[in-house]
Amino acid sequence: MKLFSYWRSLAAFRVRIALNLKGQPFEVVSTDLIKGEQFDPEYLKINPQGVVPALITDDGNTLTQSMAILEYLDETYPEPALMPADAMARARVRSLCMILVADMHPLVVPRIRKYITQDLGHSEEELGAWIGNWTKLGLAAIETQLAEGGHSGKYCEGDSPTLADLCLVPQVGAAMLFKIPLDDYPNCVRIFKTCMENPAFFDARPQAQPDFPEDMK
Amino acid sequence: MKLFSYWRSLAAFRVRIALNLKGQPFEVVSTDLIKGEQFDPEYLKINPQGVVPALITDDGNTLTQSMAILEYLDETYPEPALMPADAMARARVRSLCMILVADMHPLVVPRIRKYITQDLGHSEEELGAWIGNWTKLGLAAIETQLAEGGHSGKYCEGDSPTLADLCLVPQVGAAMLFKIPLDDYPNCVRIFKTCMENPAFFDARPQAQPDFPEDMK
Repeated sequence: MKLFSYWRSLAAFRVRIALNLKGQPFEVVSTDLIKGEQFDPEYLKINPQGVVPALITDDGNTLTQSMAILEYLDETYPEPALMPADAMARARVRSLCMILVADMHPLVVPRIRKYITQDLGHSEEELGAWIGNWTKLGLAAIETQLAEGGHSGKYCEGDSPTLADLCLVPQVGAAMLFKIPLDDYPNCVRIFKTCMENPAFFDARPQAQPDFPEDMK
Repeated sequence: MKLFSYWRSLAAFRVRIALNLKGQPFEVVSTDLIKGEQFDPEYLKINPQGVVPALITDDGNTLTQSMAILEYLDETYPEPALMPADAMARARVRSLCMILVADMHPLVVPRIRKYITQDLGHSEEELGAWIGNWTKLGLAAIETQLAEGGHSGKYCEGDSPTLADLCLVPQVGAAMLFKIPLDDYPNCVRIFKTCMENPAFFDARPQAQPDFPEDMK
């Protein structure tokens, strides 16, 4: 398979973890979101939305939107299962995914950061406050669900990785990058650390990507 | 079942359509997002994230996050199916859902509008430009997928409603409310109109809700 990815894309990070967990080899095609390569006409033919990731399957089909790709991979390559068998447990996993994928991540992506600084004229400090606000609100909601529900174990739901962990890890990693204090979210940090001991997660991290900048190493 | 809902919540609108399509009766508990009732301590016990919808099932379980609820309802009440049988078709449906649910809607919810006007000090006109920008970008991506993929029919995927239609209809309705010109999105508008001829969609609309304000009727 071929994954249109960028080292710092949290959405691409999720898909890289899934492909690693499923043991599916993939070729990374770097799409530099800062240079605007996601708007190249050739890429827009693949993903008209102009975002990463996009996954080209071995039979030539194109998949877009990370959550759709994750669910597809879990349906198509059932082992190891990344969703619980029970419908209520699946709903809990998807609820955690949606807090991360819908209510947190889209508020801090490059196009939003650009709109806030360039179109609305705000400072980097004000942008940092915006990022911090939504990140902390989201992590607090997740932390409560992890701490109170009685359903989290070694991972977000039980003792094996689910899609919720694949969505949590990139977001916690980004919060660390943005230097957001994480003391109030001990379960989130604990699960992040547990996941990062698994090579499928660790090898998918931004720093391990072929397009990670030399001068940041 | 009991649905914590608000007449103008697009996320609650999605779930109301699903419950209607599945023929599942539900009691609406109005949660006024403008008054801040989503932050009442009693409600935060139900949904610690302080957002609607939340669905209480007949056996007393709580579900949160509209996409998680939609998938749960489709898994638990299989008829009529709101997801295609084929994995690639399911991925297309979920990709459309995610553009709407993750990349469009979270950018225009009350808490974001409040942050932009109150915390960042912008005018209603500047807020309108923000809402218009992300709405048009999202609808353009959806329109391209609907027009070019060869997979949409009477509805977003084929000729029967899927979760993509349940997510599209509220967002197109909101765009109309925000007076965003829709001439460039003929497939979105066509599918919106088709859906609104179906009582399951029509009866779920904001104007038909028990908490729709008297002075707006």
